[in-house]
Amino acid sequence: RRYQGSPTGTDIECRGWRQEAVLRMLNNNLDPEVAERPEDLVVYGGTGRAARSWDAYDAILAELRELADDETLLVQSGKPVGVFRTHERAPRVLIANSNLVGKWDDWEHFHELEAEGKTMYGQMTAGSWAYIGTQGILQGTYETLAELGRQHFPDEEGLRGRTVVTGGLGGMGGAQPLAVTMNGGVCIAAEVDEDRIDRRIETGYCMEKTDSVAEAVERAEAAAAADESYSVGVHGNAADVLEAMLERGFVPDAVTDQTSAHDELEGYYPSGYTVEAADELRERDPERYVEESVDTMERHVDAILEMQDRGAVAFEYGNNIRGQVQSYTGRDDAFDFPGFVPAYIRPLFCRGKGPFRWVALSGDPEDIRRTDDAVLDLFPDDDRLARWIRLAREEVQFQGLPARVCWLGSRTDDEGVSERARFALKINELVADGEISAPIVVTRDHLDAGSVASPNRETEAMRDGTDAVADWPILNALVNCAAGADVVSVHDGGGVGIGNALHANNHVVLDGSDLAAEKARAVFTTDPGMGVVRHADAGYEEALDEAARSGVRVPMPP
Amino acid sequence: RRYQGSPTGTDIECRGWRQEAVLRMLNNNLDPEVAERPEDLVVYGGTGRAARSWDAYDAILAELRELADDETLLVQSGKPVGVFRTHERAPRVLIANSNLVGKWDDWEHFHELEAEGKTMYGQMTAGSWAYIGTQGILQGTYETLAELGRQHFPDEEGLRGRTVVTGGLGGMGGAQPLAVTMNGGVCIAAEVDEDRIDRRIETGYCMEKTDSVAEAVERAEAAAAADESYSVGVHGNAADVLEAMLERGFVPDAVTDQTSAHDELEGYYPSGYTVEAADELRERDPERYVEESVDTMERHVDAILEMQDRGAVAFEYGNNIRGQVQSYTGRDDAFDFPGFVPAYIRPLFCRGKGPFRWVALSGDPEDIRRTDDAVLDLFPDDDRLARWIRLAREEVQFQGLPARVCWLGSRTDDEGVSERARFALKINELVADGEISAPIVVTRDHLDAGSVASPNRETEAMRDGTDAVADWPILNALVNCAAGADVVSVHDGGGVGIGNALHANNHVVLDGSDLAAEKARAVFTTDPGMGVVRHADAGYEEALDEAARSGVRVPMPP
Ligand SMILES: NC(=O)c1ccc[n+]([C@@H]2O[C@H](COP(=O)([O-])OP(=O)(O)OC[C@H]3O[C@@H](n4cnc5c(N)ncnc54)[C@H](O)[C@@H]3O)[C@@H](O)[C@H]2O)c1
Ligand SMILES: NC(=O)c1ccc[n+]([C@@H]2O[C@H](COP(=O)([O-])OP(=O)(O)OC[C@H]3O[C@@H](n4cnc5c(N)ncnc54)[C@H](O)[C@@H]3O)[C@@H](O)[C@H]2O)c1
Repeated sequence: RRYQGSPTGTDIECRGWRQEAVLRMLNNNLDPEVAERPEDLVVYGGTGRAARSWDAYDAILAELRELADDETLLVQSGKPVGVFRTHERAPRVLIANSNLVGKWDDWEHFHELEAEGKTMYGQMTAGSWAYIGTQGILQGTYETLAELGRQHFPDEEGLRGRTVVTGGLGGMGGAQPLAVTMNGGVCIAAEVDEDRIDRRIETGYCMEKTDSVAEAVERAEAAAAADESYSVGVHGNAADVLEAMLERGFVPDAVTDQTSAHDELEGYYPSGYTVEAADELRERDPERYVEESVDTMERHVDAILEMQDRGAVAFEYGNNIRGQVQSYTGRDDAFDFPGFVPAYIRPLFCRGKGPFRWVALSGDPEDIRRTDDAVLDLFPDDDRLARWIRLAREEVQFQGLPARVCWLGSRTDDEGVSERARFALKINELVADGEISAPIVVTRDHLDAGSVASPNRETEAMRDGTDAVADWPILNALVNCAAGADVVSVHDGGGVGIGNALHANNHVVLDGSDLAAEKARAVFTTDPGMGVVRHADAGYEEALDEAARSGVRVPMPP
Repeated sequence: RRYQGSPTGTDIECRGWRQEAVLRMLNNNLDPEVAERPEDLVVYGGTGRAARSWDAYDAILAELRELADDETLLVQSGKPVGVFRTHERAPRVLIANSNLVGKWDDWEHFHELEAEGKTMYGQMTAGSWAYIGTQGILQGTYETLAELGRQHFPDEEGLRGRTVVTGGLGGMGGAQPLAVTMNGGVCIAAEVDEDRIDRRIETGYCMEKTDSVAEAVERAEAAAAADESYSVGVHGNAADVLEAMLERGFVPDAVTDQTSAHDELEGYYPSGYTVEAADELRERDPERYVEESVDTMERHVDAILEMQDRGAVAFEYGNNIRGQVQSYTGRDDAFDFPGFVPAYIRPLFCRGKGPFRWVALSGDPEDIRRTDDAVLDLFPDDDRLARWIRLAREEVQFQGLPARVCWLGSRTDDEGVSERARFALKINELVADGEISAPIVVTRDHLDAGSVASPNRETEAMRDGTDAVADWPILNALVNCAAGADVVSVHDGGGVGIGNALHANNHVVLDGSDLAAEKARAVFTTDPGMGVVRHADAGYEEALDEAARSGVRVPMPP
């Protein structure tokens, strides 16, 4: 264990703030408050690492401390491999993680190389040093549900008076109850593991728990009728809980699921077992476990479909429960409800909307408070954004360096400056004026418009069938490098596993300088702009409309 | 057919020479003198295209004509998809061709998308607009054989007095006799198709032909004894020709092969058939064809192994004849002779040596003559380079824009400037001084040190087993973008097919300006430098030595 600690404050160890920013982001990723298993360099997602080894970590920090303002450090799957002279406007750090040549691009070859210390799994924000704890998933879930509300209940504010039923309160799924209540709605979440419900209640992500479906439904209906936000965890198997609701004649306004259905043996629990009994069955008779697990999934999907038939809005939340049921049972009707990206996220992607997260390098929560004020000030008409920022202020506990995330897009103002650029330039001014005590780093995650090719998630069911075309993330990385982002990275795998996605990330350091302003103006036009051109090329009307409104040049519109 | 012609001269249609250079390189790729099937936009390699369609071609040219000095055009698999404001030191064009997410990264998915017009096969230099005709393969073959000479016959100048036996005088293999004679040696090449031999004789690539192995061997031995360079095509099946040589007790100094053994049905010819008879058999009974073809390959490999046993230097020239025999017969001893990259090219890669090609945008051969003089002048001690340049002047007919290629590396002078940078800076001066009439573009091909991951060719049998790690080409593209190359591209497939390789390319336009000098100095340090760091990381001593000599920073030497 050789963690060097997460520096804060206004004194720096590096030769400039842009190098210092990278050093702090890397250390923040490994902060025990932030990382899942910092002792193994694992940040999140099971095996997503920030560096290949402690030696590599030390060497990266040493290089960053020496790096000149016109030099660029190269990091290959978590290991520093070269330093070259470039120029000041160019990135300080370039990263490529976990990439394999197509024919070898699978877990088997990856694990062989990993075992020999030749590569590392970087996930998306672990190896690109952009993880900020659970706020990211909370905001993504908030945004998805807000869009659902906008589409299906346009006359309400958010999900006010609406009830959402879901399953799974794990690492990511645990964000669901809070994301629903932040949207003003009511959430009933089925979770088989009572400890998980307790943890969500302790951290304020869920309000109450119960063993009784009847009780949960009654309380939910009462809260919805009173237009009050409310959340309750129901201790039980999601398939059983949904069936019990249907038996009672209860149909929610929306239904989804975040049990770990993508893994039929290690993730999803079969009906009829406690957690302990199921764990014992998995050990003793894994084949039988899988059989029962898949049987439960089929009932689970049937219940979702039945709720949909009776009027609920149904969608899959990226856990592949539809695919599992289809491939085990051959039932194509498992896909009779849509995935969350095509349904709710893509319309935002078409407009370049996507995650924009910023981190206060000072470590001072006051700095984030100033940015919160600034964003509310800049976009006074964006209710969804305002609701998120106000609630995030109250509900989100910072982990490691104080940070914030919200979704902004390509929409330009009268001077042709995009939403993202406008906000970044405002932050940069505040840093220049000393209103913010130290530079701010802006980065994002992978649920992004123009930097991801991921046929099972971000690019599922593209209108023109180009789900697997991987030119886009590469162009995104190259154009952000050309625009002058301070860190640019390209990675294989991320949340969907080796060979299943290619994605790119970037950081821009807002240190109050004119150079930072130039970089911000360019990167925060190109980065969301890539989302617009990618979706325009695929034939989405919203993207073509956004291109026309926001001056994004599309040479060959379809 | 909507080819707009290949502009030359000193007047430009674009807003700057860097845009004009790209426009001319693209058009040069499609020049009927250069391209294989220009009417289909195919430049070389069967299906390697310069643009996705004629509409896309028109649109690319239109965008280039409008592109400002601080804008960047994005090209996605041969189609222009966006234009963004970046800055002057950044690339003008960024290209990503044929890339697919790993799990879908195969011909089947590629062809589906291609049929719908959603992607294009860009090969390596076709879609990156860097093809210069057959000079490239000639020079690569020359360099390989020169290195063989250096390693095995260190006391001779090149291959003087040495005999090389090979097979195949096709598109690439046809360069072999001339590459041998340019190295001062003697070549006997077996070719079953007499027309191919005739074509090589017409174009001056081969001197004579014969049907008789005895005659070929006699003449070869006489020439070698007299230290004269000589080449002869033997009309016959390579397996038969090699066996006949062994029967006569003839063992050459070196033996290799460039028949199309990688394709047992459409490429390689079985013994006992004329070309016509074999073509007929292929139609009538493809299974029998494959059986006989593979039988012949096995005899062919046995003959090579026998020659090796009797003292010849044997190597495979990238046609996979070893792999074919191994997979069809299970004989692992097929791999008892090495591939050409590990044997001869990798030692050069370790020192950042690789292809450096430059093109005279004026169209004036005089401009290339001046660069020839300059390179001879700059590197007076490099005999291999001098021999190549002098002979290329005499033997190479320009196709399309006049061009030259040679291999240069990372080695720095007293002021820390690499070979490649030194030469580029010299050219830039000549352009500034008006000694060269219009700007020169520098680019390269794929047989390169630090920009390719290709487990069957460039990265075959890496010392540390990292053949399939694809982080390197991505870092190469990013760092060249950061250094300010004018075009940067990343592609899947190239000469070994979809899913089998990832590689990057770049162009730098030497227009005589200070900006060009800055770009050249940076790119021609980073680009060969990536070769040094990649091989240093894999544990090659030569690379670690070169890093130490030439000031290439390797943070964690193994
Ligand atoms: N961006 C996205 O696409 C996205 C976002 C969030 C989550 N997801 C997916 O959602 C799933 C959950 O992710 P996570 O990180 O929270 O996983 P996790 O393993 O941490 O949590 C899963 C939870 O589900 C519970 N569970 C399993 N089977 C159950 C059943 N039949 N009934 C009730 N509870 C059950 C488990 O006890 C556990 O608490 C994964 O499949 C993940 O890939 C995708
Ligand atoms: N960089 C590299 O790795 C590299 C470089 C050059 C060539 N190659 C490989 O070399 C091979 C040749 O390439 P090409 O472009 O010249 O192919 P090609 O198909 O144009 O030419 C092959 C020639 O071999 C002849 N031939 C086939 N079988 C024969 C036999 N049994 N005996 C005698 N002649 C025979 C054919 O008539 C033809 O002229 C390919 O497999 C290619 O991949 C690899």
